[in-house]
Amino acid sequence: MELTGRLLIGKANVAVSTPEIKAINPATGEQLAPAYYAGSIAEVDQACELAKQANAEFRHSSLEKRAVFLETIADEIIAIGDALIERTMLETGLPRGRIEGERGRTCGQLRLFAEVVRSGESLDLRIDPAMPDRQPLPRVDLRLQNIAVGPVAVFGASNFPLAFSVAGGDTASAFAAGCPVVVKAHSAHPGTSEMIGRAIQSAVTKCDLPEGVFSMLYGIGNELGQALVTDQRIKAVGFTGSRSGGLALMKIAQARTEPIPVYAEMSSINPVFLLPDALEARGHKLAEGFIGSLTMGAGQFCTNPGVVIALSGKALDKFLSTATTTILDAAPQTMLTAGIYQAYKDGVSTLAKSKSVKSLGYGIESNQPNGCQSGLFITTAEDFLKDQTLRDEIFGSTSLVVECKDIDEMLSVASQLEGQLTTTLQMDDTDLDLAKALLPILEDKAGRIMVNGWPTGVEVCHAMVHGGPFPATSDPRTTSVGSAAIYRFLRPVCYQNLPQALLPETLTDKNSVDLPHLFDGKRVN
Amino acid sequence: MELTGRLLIGKANVAVSTPEIKAINPATGEQLAPAYYAGSIAEVDQACELAKQANAEFRHSSLEKRAVFLETIADEIIAIGDALIERTMLETGLPRGRIEGERGRTCGQLRLFAEVVRSGESLDLRIDPAMPDRQPLPRVDLRLQNIAVGPVAVFGASNFPLAFSVAGGDTASAFAAGCPVVVKAHSAHPGTSEMIGRAIQSAVTKCDLPEGVFSMLYGIGNELGQALVTDQRIKAVGFTGSRSGGLALMKIAQARTEPIPVYAEMSSINPVFLLPDALEARGHKLAEGFIGSLTMGAGQFCTNPGVVIALSGKALDKFLSTATTTILDAAPQTMLTAGIYQAYKDGVSTLAKSKSVKSLGYGIESNQPNGCQSGLFITTAEDFLKDQTLRDEIFGSTSLVVECKDIDEMLSVASQLEGQLTTTLQMDDTDLDLAKALLPILEDKAGRIMVNGWPTGVEVCHAMVHGGPFPATSDPRTTSVGSAAIYRFLRPVCYQNLPQALLPETLTDKNSVDLPHLFDGKRVN
Repeated sequence: MELTGRLLIGKANVAVSTPEIKAINPATGEQLAPAYYAGSIAEVDQACELAKQANAEFRHSSLEKRAVFLETIADEIIAIGDALIERTMLETGLPRGRIEGERGRTCGQLRLFAEVVRSGESLDLRIDPAMPDRQPLPRVDLRLQNIAVGPVAVFGASNFPLAFSVAGGDTASAFAAGCPVVVKAHSAHPGTSEMIGRAIQSAVTKCDLPEGVFSMLYGIGNELGQALVTDQRIKAVGFTGSRSGGLALMKIAQARTEPIPVYAEMSSINPVFLLPDALEARGHKLAEGFIGSLTMGAGQFCTNPGVVIALSGKALDKFLSTATTTILDAAPQTMLTAGIYQAYKDGVSTLAKSKSVKSLGYGIESNQPNGCQSGLFITTAEDFLKDQTLRDEIFGSTSLVVECKDIDEMLSVASQLEGQLTTTLQMDDTDLDLAKALLPILEDKAGRIMVNGWPTGVEVCHAMVHGGPFPATSDPRTTSVGSAAIYRFLRPVCYQNLPQALLPETLTDKNSVDLPHLFDGKRVN
Repeated sequence: MELTGRLLIGKANVAVSTPEIKAINPATGEQLAPAYYAGSIAEVDQACELAKQANAEFRHSSLEKRAVFLETIADEIIAIGDALIERTMLETGLPRGRIEGERGRTCGQLRLFAEVVRSGESLDLRIDPAMPDRQPLPRVDLRLQNIAVGPVAVFGASNFPLAFSVAGGDTASAFAAGCPVVVKAHSAHPGTSEMIGRAIQSAVTKCDLPEGVFSMLYGIGNELGQALVTDQRIKAVGFTGSRSGGLALMKIAQARTEPIPVYAEMSSINPVFLLPDALEARGHKLAEGFIGSLTMGAGQFCTNPGVVIALSGKALDKFLSTATTTILDAAPQTMLTAGIYQAYKDGVSTLAKSKSVKSLGYGIESNQPNGCQSGLFITTAEDFLKDQTLRDEIFGSTSLVVECKDIDEMLSVASQLEGQLTTTLQMDDTDLDLAKALLPILEDKAGRIMVNGWPTGVEVCHAMVHGGPFPATSDPRTTSVGSAAIYRFLRPVCYQNLPQALLPETLTDKNSVDLPHLFDGKRVN
């Protein structure tokens, strides 16, 4: 596949004025060919118009057709072959194993959503049959199903160039819901985006879907993204990125004549609580596990363990000693972009300068461009509670240990946390009472609560919640990973007394009978 | 039950400074005793603090306990007896039959939610079991359930003093979800509110729930409501009322440090399309049905048919002739408040003065205070498309007929509509092709689409959607009537690798096995 640098608008590959956007290899600082064309409001308009035109047909395309479409995208991605892996490595500095794994996850995710579509679960079908003889008033036939909200704007994320970018979780779940998608490609990996975008384009054609089901635009600065979120034909937004970026999109979406939901996954420090008996019994192992989770992928995960909370004492001292020793050996890793690297350095430097924070140790310094040096810091719960800035996310492999005088202080720290994607309890059986005291607090704080694991590594499955209260996300009622992510792009419609010939296919007597549904409130299938 | 005029804060009945709020009998203009105390920020703070304290216990109260609580509220409301009916009639001007029916609906709604809670459906349990031998990485046990979002602020509506007020749909669904509720009582029916509020208070005590599960405040102006929505302990808002009121609450909620969802049900003109063959075949009957729906309850329904769209021609002329004759006989009815009456008069007067609108007829004029005189107007599709103000809701029994030259113009009118609670097709079998052309447009516009019915009369059941795109509501992904309303107050949490002793009761192996759930994505129960 030869890269063209063109915008993908429906089935057209479009060049506009002069190509301006070039990927940079973060490991070397070198620019990568080709240059990419930056779209403008005109291209947003074209993509949104096509999406609108495709909307009605795609929304009510059969479940099987939509499932096959998702599977075809996965097949087309695999068919790109090693060229995809190589280009992604060049654009992100991520190692081959990671990219190959991420490709597997991306395709697995698409296939999972195909299964979800086929099952019909997300339609949430409900049939309340007519009761013509009911007193004092008869009831007519009422049927509910979830339908697609309409065209969705997806912003590709930099830290998952495959699994949360062009054909990532947002796009896959929007397609599964029956929504056309317009992607704003992330400028850090335009070549990867083009390869994936063309795979989707090809799947649209092969599956005989209207071309407007998918478009992909590149843009410089915020203008194109703003135009996309402002466009009245767009009905929802998926975004994974910085807090400032997410907040900006939320503001734009709220200011529209018709406000729309923005599903922004923004920032999280993923607190890990080391409960006393677990810390006492296996502090050494916990410290190794912690640094392993912290330094994985240069810490560029939304679920990176940015804060560790424990009671002061000998057990904590031992844990810190192992953690410090381990981090000293942590090899530097290339970060995704110069911007992320600079923000990381600034964040670490601010933390290091804070009077209430002590540095415990740093990993090996890098002599390459954009090399992330790991860092470990410590503060007291008292200072952590006083100084709001200590709770800011530092995107990269740096973490802050919060030392608590006693359990009350630990509970206070938990209560004062902002919304998180995850919280973790490291606990033994004998820590159960404290865990029970923490759990109701943590339920208010996070979308996922785990025991004796580390927050990095997000399973793509049915029970996953990758979400959580603000500011972890803009909408804690949802998840952006796992099959429940499809619900972000659906809304219920009630069809009252419609003749069979007018009902959506999935709601007719003939077809609904085999699909999971509530019949008069009782579950069938 | 002697009315006290006091605020209900947890189990306390609180008097503050001087009572200032008095209900007015809209039929006579007379003030009704007693005067009610207006709360301030201090009372909001107390109510929210109690709600927060009750939150963890109520959230994880057993399904059976919560179901019994809902049923007990219904029992307590019935136990008030005829005093409730009489007071509500005095405060609202609504006739006995309507109030008795609404009490039945309110209690039926509470009992429906009790069933929903018992069924466990709304927990959306998902269990993805551990796969310790999976390659390349094992999977740990992951379980998802929906939990309550936290304390909810409910604003009572004036037009359903029982079914959408203190113990109405918002409160019932929030309780069903496991959320403590703080109600801002509507000033138009404080006595009704006190009776119902004390019924809930009594149910809280009888069911041995923490007192903070329910509080109710009265307030003057917007200050108290603002304080409530601004309070950081409140996690969601339910509101039924005007567009300006809903938009104001949305703005306040979005400006919080932690933005929260506002479920505002605001305004809708509920377009009815008279398709040609149905109009030809049964125009006379349709006209009678239309005026019946329009004038019911002085048109004070969110689903009042405010716009009727049809092709010009003889069939429409006959329809209009019957409709006009029928409306001339329409008796005046007392409106709920002087404010609603004045807004109605202003709306009708603006419409009557519009150059693009012709009046067809008015109902009988009233010589009593706040008497609603019905009205019927007509305009052309061309003017309707040009003049945005013709699409504004007039709350009361006035409707506008939109005459279309041809089917294209009818489709244009459909396309240009704002979001609606309902749209209706009056159609015969031979109108199917046109209905099929309209349906995808209407799906984008409304939460409920009906055939050969009238929009007034909202069935409380499982398949109901009383919602729809903005500005009908603030959030088209939800409904405020029917059992699916519970989802507004829930959010998913993933519990990863938790020991059985730490899991929420409903997610343990022992209890989940009998509840509806997805096991590895496959439905069980």
